[in-house]
Amino acid sequence: MTKLLASARNHKYLRIAEAIEAMIQDEVLNIGDRLPSVRVLSDEYGISMGTAFQAYYQLEGKGLIESRSKSGYYVRFNNKRLPSVPGISSLKPVSSEISMADIVTQVYKNVSDLDLINFSVATPPMDLLPAAKLNKSVLHAIRSSKYHGLNYEHYQGNLELRKQIVKLSFNWGGKIKPDDIIVTAGCMEALSLCLRATVKTGDAIAVESPTYFGIFQLLACLGLQAVEIPADPVNGIDVLQLEKAIRQFSVKACLFVPNFNNPVGSCMPDEKKKQLVELITRLKIPLIEDDIYGELHFGKSRPKTCKTFDKEGWVLHCTSLSKSLAPGYRIGWCIPGRFTEKIKSLKMVLTIAAPTLMQVAVAHFLSIGRYEYHMKNFRKALYKQYLRYVQSIIEHFPEDVRISRPQGGYILWIELDKRIHSLKLYHEAMKYGISIAPGQLFSSKGSYEHYFRLSFGKQFDDTIEYGIRVLGQLIRKSRL
Amino acid sequence: MTKLLASARNHKYLRIAEAIEAMIQDEVLNIGDRLPSVRVLSDEYGISMGTAFQAYYQLEGKGLIESRSKSGYYVRFNNKRLPSVPGISSLKPVSSEISMADIVTQVYKNVSDLDLINFSVATPPMDLLPAAKLNKSVLHAIRSSKYHGLNYEHYQGNLELRKQIVKLSFNWGGKIKPDDIIVTAGCMEALSLCLRATVKTGDAIAVESPTYFGIFQLLACLGLQAVEIPADPVNGIDVLQLEKAIRQFSVKACLFVPNFNNPVGSCMPDEKKKQLVELITRLKIPLIEDDIYGELHFGKSRPKTCKTFDKEGWVLHCTSLSKSLAPGYRIGWCIPGRFTEKIKSLKMVLTIAAPTLMQVAVAHFLSIGRYEYHMKNFRKALYKQYLRYVQSIIEHFPEDVRISRPQGGYILWIELDKRIHSLKLYHEAMKYGISIAPGQLFSSKGSYEHYFRLSFGKQFDDTIEYGIRVLGQLIRKSRL
Repeated sequence: MTKLLASARNHKYLRIAEAIEAMIQDEVLNIGDRLPSVRVLSDEYGISMGTAFQAYYQLEGKGLIESRSKSGYYVRFNNKRLPSVPGISSLKPVSSEISMADIVTQVYKNVSDLDLINFSVATPPMDLLPAAKLNKSVLHAIRSSKYHGLNYEHYQGNLELRKQIVKLSFNWGGKIKPDDIIVTAGCMEALSLCLRATVKTGDAIAVESPTYFGIFQLLACLGLQAVEIPADPVNGIDVLQLEKAIRQFSVKACLFVPNFNNPVGSCMPDEKKKQLVELITRLKIPLIEDDIYGELHFGKSRPKTCKTFDKEGWVLHCTSLSKSLAPGYRIGWCIPGRFTEKIKSLKMVLTIAAPTLMQVAVAHFLSIGRYEYHMKNFRKALYKQYLRYVQSIIEHFPEDVRISRPQGGYILWIELDKRIHSLKLYHEAMKYGISIAPGQLFSSKGSYEHYFRLSFGKQFDDTIEYGIRVLGQLIRKSRL
Repeated sequence: MTKLLASARNHKYLRIAEAIEAMIQDEVLNIGDRLPSVRVLSDEYGISMGTAFQAYYQLEGKGLIESRSKSGYYVRFNNKRLPSVPGISSLKPVSSEISMADIVTQVYKNVSDLDLINFSVATPPMDLLPAAKLNKSVLHAIRSSKYHGLNYEHYQGNLELRKQIVKLSFNWGGKIKPDDIIVTAGCMEALSLCLRATVKTGDAIAVESPTYFGIFQLLACLGLQAVEIPADPVNGIDVLQLEKAIRQFSVKACLFVPNFNNPVGSCMPDEKKKQLVELITRLKIPLIEDDIYGELHFGKSRPKTCKTFDKEGWVLHCTSLSKSLAPGYRIGWCIPGRFTEKIKSLKMVLTIAAPTLMQVAVAHFLSIGRYEYHMKNFRKALYKQYLRYVQSIIEHFPEDVRISRPQGGYILWIELDKRIHSLKLYHEAMKYGISIAPGQLFSSKGSYEHYFRLSFGKQFDDTIEYGIRVLGQLIRKSRL
């Protein structure tokens, strides 16, 4: 009962904060405007002073308003102040041998150095993960598993976990059964199994440009060619352009990140996903869909997936819990449509099964509703971090930088003045213990020289602010 | 202090049991001979009646002696009664395309059916694994890991675990450092990384014949050819024959199981291992060594590995804890010599890292000496099971069957009358809920039709005895 009341009260202050946020974004309230006092707000909405205060506190946390001492609350920021979105750099699809860039190794060698101000890795903020509750689920797994989890799990994955994954897929309109799922060691194993099941050495694979360097490395590992399809930082790739590229370069499979793409942050509109699936179904070309950021939406509803529109099983949906729950548990999965049987046997041959205890623990965590609860708060916290990072960047970076506008995930794609070489910026920043991911990592040909990726996974604090300020100074300096 | 005393007492009864066992094996005592009474034994050795009784109890457990009511103890079995060892079936090396046998899927489809009398899987006896103590190590891992194990581990593997693996390698004369090791998801991932780092699609790989079907499946997965080198059930492959085959078939790498080979149970003598390593070093051909059963020796000392003799880094040593400790934890590793850097980056790209908690738990379990303690008892228990299974087989199978004589592991390789087709036997046995692994699984060409593999991993009991009796009856029947 107390919980119910608390939740109702929660909703009230959030509703009011949202209403004010909307007024700020719509410029009904402008930057510098004074807001009604807490007392006036409480009278206006018929709420307690406490609730009114909570609403303002919420908006202040997002950096949208500020309190000035003895003077009240003022609007501080709105989305209209955001810089432009980065442009599409390469305009034509290109096919190329992948040169496994040494810079990846170079950039990620020092990545576990804890003293680093690390903007280069896309890991979730550890402090926001539900460690204590996950620990309880591990204890449950130890107690409840047959032989305490010492024996092999079924090669397709723990059945209860697969049932929970079915439930989770309701969020994107998935119509799947537990037997359609194969549990993997994170999303990377899922992607590599899917590639192995659909193409052979030397084949050409369409990917977005820019795309996550891990995908280029994976293609290189498997001896595959990349055909890079330019992706718009808002809407992703163009389906007509893809069709032409498929014919021109004899593309044998596509590997895309349609939701909150890494690094550009684009989210393909659902209608476009549908067109994409129609295209690949017509051409009978497998589409490997990496949906690793799909659950991390800032908006109210989760974006659909390509799998949602897949009628004939040509979409191989891959994801994991590494970006939202527990990277160290190494739990991912794929839903490979018509390639399911093939991937089942590949999984069995290559790694036999995923670790038993980790699977049972996650199944338990999901089954008692803890994942859903965690994600609700986690998404809000990420959105807040997004706003704080962007505000700080606007404050400290030169005015001509362009910043992506992700609607989920925790990655920003930043375009600099063409004179600035981001690998040079990387080296300069490292002198101050600051790590960024230079743009060249995100293309097989070392394009995107004046871009870089900045992850806002770490909780925003004074150190982060310092890091962004120093980066801003270095950017200004490199222009001279 | 109590522990020390107990251990001293332990040693006494074991020493006496061993002395009597030696007399039985050397035929100083013959089958049917009456043994001295417990009282006489205690007088003779100056031990308590209790210790004398314990010694007999130990020998009875191994099936070497039996007590007849009101009459005393009698010798029941000696090793001289063992049937002959299976022959080498194929005499010449052969290279062939691997046909991913449907029978593997067929045989292993029902493998997790708990009602099955399962002689077909090579998993350790769950009841003999130290579940309670491993659980404690998992708890320790949850408490002691940074972020409770939620974050990624280093891609090369947890450092403390790698230090413990270094210590473990002292047992086979390993001279390695933590940085020479990459932690993997069991031995299968280690093997697949090693193949990927050393050869390319279409290459020919030398394997023993017969060899574990999982290795054939792995080669098929990676598009590799198998060159099968006949292996003697006692000493393994012939090095001269291998050299010829390497030249004849342009072999690009070897993948062998030198210790307690699966399925023949051979253990390559150390001198031969040395010759093998000299050969592959001279020819600059990588040798992938699967040492998954190496720790499960029945004799006093652990056999050496090929890695022991590797001076120039051409041996890629692979193993795991799946056969001795916890298959469900999925902890394996490789020590890939000159291919270490390549395998480090492959591991990072393909699965990023092994699960954090499982690694920390195992590192803890090893570091406090629990693994060593467990293995001491586990090896004894396996040897006892070996004796009991073999005795039961001798009792129930026709006299002309031939049985391998493994000095470790838990696998028997059984040769039947040439008229008996073991796949037919498999189907007959399945009608009685008994599963065996037909010989054809262990060759890429479906040879070994009148062989089968029988795992003695499950604790010997009435059900196992029943299973062996029924198998014996079916073998007799199929000859008619």
